[in-house]
Amino acid sequence: MIRDIFEKTQRVKPVVHCITNFVTVNDCANMVLACGGSPTMAYDLREAEDIAEKADALVLNMGTVSDTDAMILAGRKSNALHHPIIIDPVGIGGSRLRVDTFRRLSESMQFSVIRGNSSEIKAIALGASAIRGVDAAEADQIREENINEIVSMAKSLSAKMKSVIIISGPIDIVANAERAYLVRNGHPIMAKVTGTGCMSTAMLGAFCGANPRRILEGALVSTIIMGVSGELAYAKTLAQGGGTMTFRMHLIDEVSMITPEVIHEKMKIEEV
Amino acid sequence: MIRDIFEKTQRVKPVVHCITNFVTVNDCANMVLACGGSPTMAYDLREAEDIAEKADALVLNMGTVSDTDAMILAGRKSNALHHPIIIDPVGIGGSRLRVDTFRRLSESMQFSVIRGNSSEIKAIALGASAIRGVDAAEADQIREENINEIVSMAKSLSAKMKSVIIISGPIDIVANAERAYLVRNGHPIMAKVTGTGCMSTAMLGAFCGANPRRILEGALVSTIIMGVSGELAYAKTLAQGGGTMTFRMHLIDEVSMITPEVIHEKMKIEEV
Amino acid sequence: MIRDIFEKTQRVKPVVHCITNFVTVNDCANMVLACGGSPTMAYDLREAEDIAEKADALVLNMGTVSDTDAMILAGRKSNALHHPIIIDPVGIGGSRLRVDTFRRLSESMQFSVIRGNSSEIKAIALGASAIRGVDAAEADQIREENINEIVSMAKSLSAKMKSVIIISGPIDIVANAERAYLVRNGHPIMAKVTGTGCMSTAMLGAFCGANPRRILEGALVSTIIMGVSGELAYAKTLAQGGGTMTFRMHLIDEVSMITPEVIHEKMKIEEV
Repeated sequence: MIRDIFEKTQRVKPVVHCITNFVTVNDCANMVLACGGSPTMAYDLREAEDIAEKADALVLNMGTVSDTDAMILAGRKSNALHHPIIIDPVGIGGSRLRVDTFRRLSESMQFSVIRGNSSEIKAIALGASAIRGVDAAEADQIREENINEIVSMAKSLSAKMKSVIIISGPIDIVANAERAYLVRNGHPIMAKVTGTGCMSTAMLGAFCGANPRRILEGALVSTIIMGVSGELAYAKTLAQGGGTMTFRMHLIDEVSMITPEVIHEKMKIEEV
Repeated sequence: MIRDIFEKTQRVKPVVHCITNFVTVNDCANMVLACGGSPTMAYDLREAEDIAEKADALVLNMGTVSDTDAMILAGRKSNALHHPIIIDPVGIGGSRLRVDTFRRLSESMQFSVIRGNSSEIKAIALGASAIRGVDAAEADQIREENINEIVSMAKSLSAKMKSVIIISGPIDIVANAERAYLVRNGHPIMAKVTGTGCMSTAMLGAFCGANPRRILEGALVSTIIMGVSGELAYAKTLAQGGGTMTFRMHLIDEVSMITPEVIHEKMKIEEV
Repeated sequence: MIRDIFEKTQRVKPVVHCITNFVTVNDCANMVLACGGSPTMAYDLREAEDIAEKADALVLNMGTVSDTDAMILAGRKSNALHHPIIIDPVGIGGSRLRVDTFRRLSESMQFSVIRGNSSEIKAIALGASAIRGVDAAEADQIREENINEIVSMAKSLSAKMKSVIIISGPIDIVANAERAYLVRNGHPIMAKVTGTGCMSTAMLGAFCGANPRRILEGALVSTIIMGVSGELAYAKTLAQGGGTMTFRMHLIDEVSMITPEVIHEKMKIEEV
């Protein structure tokens, strides 16, 4: 399964239309390229539909709350053409505006995947969270003790939203209404670099765009690759005595060089 | 003093709300993370107050002259909550618009710290500068011969604006109305990387946000850490035969790894 | 010739006003610095003329289709002052909006240089291309078999637009109406990093801004430096077992460290 998803992505070279925040937009574009895709970061209302039509997937990142109208036009076009839509509800719960924006987007289109940290997904599922800024609140973080509870929340939300749900954190959860996987790859340093969440979301655009009929599998492979690359990148960073930016460089590097063999060897997944 | 300021910043993990230019926004976010803070880059007028309310400090960078209204809303909220506001008057003097923008901002809120290069601070203090673009003019640069003159200007401006003044350059000056420090750390290559000024300003958000009652000390420690990290980063860059981008990577890396011991060992400060 | 153009750029330290897309704006600013210039990324309509007036060259990158009005103000001012204007028609052909934007810009000002990939230049010259996203279509790519055809297209377009034309790809073409050069430097990995095209365009601002009466020569030297630096960067990346981001770092590094001697030794150019 992993080899199929991976090799199809390399072969298709999916064009990924990203309407994403400008803090991490460069990292997201480079991450799509590292996955074998071709990124196009087009925000203007007047071309949102044209660009979406020529793309294979649409990535919406709510770090850009100002581009909602372009997101809706691109989203409707993508739904009409059966292109996967991936949404990252960045910082939802941190302001009223972001709660309203997510509701408006979700009423306007059908998402294939919703990916966020535990505070963000909790804010969507339960309408409440302890979020300040854009990082997950300590209290919301996935730990061994609360896995079952969070997996249940993910499955219920998946059933309600008809979307695959991904919750990123020390342990990642990838779930639809029936099945859920835990991915125990990655490294804590990923939280010390801005945009690792956004980059994960952009990668989903590549893997799901190339595998539109296998969204759960595409989402799982994408999540595993991010985690495994994080581990490989940390090992190199440590060997070089580097800090957070050396790690960021190696993270995208490792995605650009990863192979199905390495993924199989390093991945730690479990169905729950 | 340095250990206190530094360790409190690590412990508090201040949320830093930055309304900063998009040229260097990614570096600024990573720099806040490297200092132990949590960055939130939120620009939309409709959420400026919500975000500022949940943050510990506000950083305004005038590279983004288009976001003045959001800056004013966030600034007023921050003043009301006694959160420090750091402003970087990027390129002031380079256009009429930037002069007007700074005046409008300064009439709307009280800044805790104003940080700029010598041309920018001169433009604010004296209403004149030889600036073209965003780099300091050769004629305005701090040199041994003009230190006394520039320190006097900084102290007077501090008294007038009721803000700590930081002038960055080959020698950095950190001053309030009564006291001024010279920081002789750093390296000339810092001027060959875009955003070292912006990153210094973002760092101030973290250190002052975590130490709101010790703004002068927070500003001084932040300035020293930037300079010392610049020296350490240059040494690594040189050893690797690297250029400006290798240096940029090591600069943020070193901030992410620095300790009070290294700061004490390497700092070259003088009260004048 | 190469030494002259190169050393004059280092000496003049041209201020380059870039209105460029925010995906790669940081790389572009760092690239201008690496070439010896001083970048100023100013977009606001209200200061476009002020900034352009104080600069030595103007770089317009259509990745930002939303800033057309600022581009026109800055462009007219630059034309009036005989400052070179470099345009990069990013993604033209990918949407109706971009076709219209290019027409509006070209009717409002005279470009000194137009730089794009083969799909983009084809879209301008012939009004047609197979473009999806922002990368060149496979079918449009420059290959040994179609060089003559593409060189003819470049020369005709140059005569029509009164601009130097640069077509980037596996082989780069630099042409005016009478003369054309092939540059066979560079490396395929450059297509796996976002913004190598944008960076090439920003560099042109520095070299043409410092050499406004020798636009063809400035354009040629700039194109050669990008290609040679790409080769040097790839060699370092390979030696370190790095991926696309290690390459990106080394690419700007090498530009920041290159010398006329290295350029002469490594360049592979041919007049056709």
